[in-house]
Amino acid sequence: MTATSANSSAQLLQGLRAIVGDKACMEAADDMQPFTTDYRKLYHGKALAVVLPATTQQVSEVMALCFRHGVPVVPQGGNTSLMGGAVPDAAGDAVVLNLRRMNQVQEIDVVNDTMTLSAGVTLQAARAAAQEAGRLFPLRIGSEGSCQIGGNLSTNAGGTAVLRYGNMRDLTLGIEAVLPDGRIYSSLRGLRKDNTGYDLKQLFIGSEGTLGIITAAVLKLMPLPGATAAAWIAVRDPHAAVELLTEAKRVAGQAVTAFELISGPALTLVLESMPQLSAPLPETHDWMVLIELTSGGDAEGLDAMLMGILEQGLERGLVTDAAIAASLADTRAFWQLREEISDAQTRTGGSIKCDISIPLSKIADFIAEASAQVLALAPDARMVIYGHMGDGNVHFNPLRPKDMAAAEFLAQNYARVSHAVDGLATRQNGSISAEHGIGVAKRDDLLECKSPVELELMWQIKRALDPGNLLNPGKVLPGAKGLV
Amino acid sequence: MTATSANSSAQLLQGLRAIVGDKACMEAADDMQPFTTDYRKLYHGKALAVVLPATTQQVSEVMALCFRHGVPVVPQGGNTSLMGGAVPDAAGDAVVLNLRRMNQVQEIDVVNDTMTLSAGVTLQAARAAAQEAGRLFPLRIGSEGSCQIGGNLSTNAGGTAVLRYGNMRDLTLGIEAVLPDGRIYSSLRGLRKDNTGYDLKQLFIGSEGTLGIITAAVLKLMPLPGATAAAWIAVRDPHAAVELLTEAKRVAGQAVTAFELISGPALTLVLESMPQLSAPLPETHDWMVLIELTSGGDAEGLDAMLMGILEQGLERGLVTDAAIAASLADTRAFWQLREEISDAQTRTGGSIKCDISIPLSKIADFIAEASAQVLALAPDARMVIYGHMGDGNVHFNPLRPKDMAAAEFLAQNYARVSHAVDGLATRQNGSISAEHGIGVAKRDDLLECKSPVELELMWQIKRALDPGNLLNPGKVLPGAKGLV
Repeated sequence: MTATSANSSAQLLQGLRAIVGDKACMEAADDMQPFTTDYRKLYHGKALAVVLPATTQQVSEVMALCFRHGVPVVPQGGNTSLMGGAVPDAAGDAVVLNLRRMNQVQEIDVVNDTMTLSAGVTLQAARAAAQEAGRLFPLRIGSEGSCQIGGNLSTNAGGTAVLRYGNMRDLTLGIEAVLPDGRIYSSLRGLRKDNTGYDLKQLFIGSEGTLGIITAAVLKLMPLPGATAAAWIAVRDPHAAVELLTEAKRVAGQAVTAFELISGPALTLVLESMPQLSAPLPETHDWMVLIELTSGGDAEGLDAMLMGILEQGLERGLVTDAAIAASLADTRAFWQLREEISDAQTRTGGSIKCDISIPLSKIADFIAEASAQVLALAPDARMVIYGHMGDGNVHFNPLRPKDMAAAEFLAQNYARVSHAVDGLATRQNGSISAEHGIGVAKRDDLLECKSPVELELMWQIKRALDPGNLLNPGKVLPGAKGLV
Repeated sequence: MTATSANSSAQLLQGLRAIVGDKACMEAADDMQPFTTDYRKLYHGKALAVVLPATTQQVSEVMALCFRHGVPVVPQGGNTSLMGGAVPDAAGDAVVLNLRRMNQVQEIDVVNDTMTLSAGVTLQAARAAAQEAGRLFPLRIGSEGSCQIGGNLSTNAGGTAVLRYGNMRDLTLGIEAVLPDGRIYSSLRGLRKDNTGYDLKQLFIGSEGTLGIITAAVLKLMPLPGATAAAWIAVRDPHAAVELLTEAKRVAGQAVTAFELISGPALTLVLESMPQLSAPLPETHDWMVLIELTSGGDAEGLDAMLMGILEQGLERGLVTDAAIAASLADTRAFWQLREEISDAQTRTGGSIKCDISIPLSKIADFIAEASAQVLALAPDARMVIYGHMGDGNVHFNPLRPKDMAAAEFLAQNYARVSHAVDGLATRQNGSISAEHGIGVAKRDDLLECKSPVELELMWQIKRALDPGNLLNPGKVLPGAKGLV
C-alpha cells in the first residue's frame, strides 16, 4: 500500500464511520471474519471494512463515498449464498455493506394485500408479520431464519411453493434500490399494474447485487390457506412422478401447492442421520413424492381431490404406496423429512451440488441419463436427488459412499461430476442454476451455457448501470476476453 | 431528399425486397396507409417502406440492413395500440416491420404446460390453440381477434383475468428477440426457474419495441377451468366494492378470477347503444360489479362460495341487489355488457381515456375525488368508469353530454380533464397507464410522473441497447434536456 492509498483509505474509513457511526463500521479482521467468509466456508475473503447502515439514506451516502473513492462494495444480507455471492474476494480492497440493521416492517396493507419491508427483514420475520395480519407471504426456503428479503430479491429465491405462487420476482410489486453512485431508485407504490415505461425493478431482482443494492420492497400477500392436504407417495420412477403431477394439476389445478421429488438414498440419509424421525411408509422405495394441496375452502374438498389423484395413480401403476397426512402434525413430519435432506448431507461432509431445471416433459429422462453418467464416473456414489419437481427443478447431489472420506470423494469427483451433469442440462436447454444463482462459484460456467449474445447483453447492462464495475465485482458476469 | 440519400434509400429498398420478397415489401403510400395510421385514427404517419418478414432470420437481416443504413424501424403487431405506439411519425424516414406473417404455433407441450408461438400469432389464435390442447391461455383483452402475442408482450398486456393469472409478463417463460443491430437473443427454453445471470427477457417485455423486436415466446398454460360461477352485483359505492372484493378473496382465494367495476352511466351507455341487450337487474344502480369465480373442481363448491360472498355483502350493507348467472349463457351475457363499454364510447365519438391504477386501499377515495374534479371542469360529463377493480385498475373515461358534439367536448376538455385525473393519480402514487402503455400519446407525461432517477435509468438502458436510437424512436422515452 502506498502512502497515498493509505491516506485515501484512512479518509474513506473516517467517512464511513461518520455516515454509519463507529459501532456500525468494523475494520478488524476478526470482527469482519463472519462477513467475509461464506455460508459453506468455501470462500475466505478480506475487506477494507464492514459497514452496517441503518437507513436507505446511509446506504446512499456509503455508496456515493465509495464511488468517489473508486472502492468496490459487496452487498450482503443473511450471507446464506451457496455460490459465494455475498462475500468479497481476497484482494481486501472492498467494503462489505450488510443490511441486517434495516429490519423494519414498514407497512402492511391488508386491503391492497401488500407488505412493505426494509431489505434486512429475515424471511421468517416477513412470514410472521404477514401471518399476524391474517395473510400469507408464500416464499418458503430452508434458510428462512437467517436469509433476508434483500437477498431473496437479489437472488430471485425459489423454494417449495413456487409451483403455486411463483419465484420471489413474481411476489414483488416494487423495490427501492441504491445505485452505484448513491442515487436512489424507488418503485414502492404497491401497484399490480403499471405500464409506464421500462419495468426497472426487474433489473435489480436476480442480479445478485451487481447493479444496485436493494434496500426495500413491496411484496404481495395472499389469503392464508384454510385447508391443507398432504401425502407421502411412493412412485414407480420419475416418469411416473411427472405423470402423477399432470393428473394432480388436472384434478386440483392451482390447489397443488408443492410437488417435491425424493430419491430413496435421500430419505435413507435423513433417517440414518436423525434416528428420532420415522419413515412415512413401511417399505423402502427408490422414488417418492411429497405433495401438498391447499385452499381457502374446506378440508373435505381437498381430501377428496387428493384421494382422486392417488386412486388414478394406483390404477395407472404410477403409485405403489402412499401415506396420507391425517393431521397437521403428519404434514409437518413429512416436510421435516424433506427439509432435513440438505443438512443431512452437510453432516456427511458435503455432496456435489447441482441445481438443475429442465422442462417437465424431459426431466425424467434427464434424471435417468445424468444418473447413469454420474455412476460411470463415481460408481458407489449415493444418489441424493430431490427437490421441486413441480417446477422442473431437482437438486442433483451425488454423495460419497459411506466407506470413503468426503474430502477424497469431493476432490476426485466434484469438478468432473458437476461438469457432466451441468453439461447434460445445458445440452437439453436446461438451467445449471435453477434457484441458487451464480455468485462466484458458477460464474465462469456461464461461458459454456449462455450464448455470446446473452453474455454481451449482460455486460451491456452492467456497463450502463455500473461503468466502474464497483458493485459486487467478480460476481455473476464472466470476465472473458471481448466481454468486459 | 438529396441525390445521395435517394441513392441510399433505393439501395435500402432493394435490400429489403431481397430479404423479404417483393410481395412482402410495400412502398406505395396507399398500400402503407393501414400500417402508418393508428387504431384510433389519431396518428397519421409516413414510412419509407412496410416489410412483412416471414421468419426470425428475415427480421434479423432487415434489422442489420437498417442498422447499417442508420434507418429507424417501427415494430408492429396487430396495430391496436391506444397510445400510438405502433406507427411511425410523419418524418417518413422509418421502416415499419409488421410481424403478422410470423403466425406459427411452434409447439404445445402439455406436460410442461407451455406453448411456443411466433410473435405474429393473434391472441385469439393462441387461446384457441391452447384450448384445443386441453389447456387455458388466460390472457383476455378486448382486441384479442387482431392483437398479436408480440404486441401483448411488448406492452405487457393486462385485461380481465390479471387478478388471478397476472399480466403478460407473468405468463411468459422465455422470448426470442432481434436486437437493433440484427443479433438474435433467445431464451425459448420453457423453464420455470433459471437463475443464471440477468433475466434479460424482462427488458424486452413492456418496453414497447424500443429495445428489441420480440419474434417468439414460450408462454405458460393453465388447467382449463372445470367450473364457473358469476354474478352481476349492485354495490353501495366503490368503497363497498373494495370491501366485497376483500371478502371474496377471503372466502374464495385464488378462485376469484375477475372482479370488474361498472358505473351506472357505463351500463346505460351500452344499453342505449345496443337495445337488443338487457340489463341484468330490474332497477338502475350507480355502481355495479361483475365477479367471476373459476376452479378445476365442481360447480357446486363455487356456487356455495359465491352465495356466501353475496350473503356477507348483503348483511354488511355492501350489496343492494344481485343477479347470479344460472347458465353459461348468462355469464356470457354479463361479459358482453362489460366488454361493449369500449365500443359504445367509440360510437358516441369517443371519450377522454384515463387508465389509472391505485393501491386498492385508496382506489375508492380516488374515484370520488377524481369524479368531483372532472365534474367541476365538465359539469354534464357522463362518468363512464369501469374496469379491473380487482387489480386496482379503472378506466376513467368521462364522456360528452348527449347534447354536445364529441369534437367540441373533447377539444374543450381532453387535455384539462386527463391532466387533472392523471395528476391526482400521480400524487397518490398511482399509475397513469395501468395497461395501455405509453407510446407517443403519454410519452411526455412521464416527465411529470417519473422521478429523474427513473428517467435517467430508462435512458441508460436505451442507450446501452440501442445507441443509435433506431428502434421505435420517439416512443416511451421523453426526450427532455439532459436525458437523451
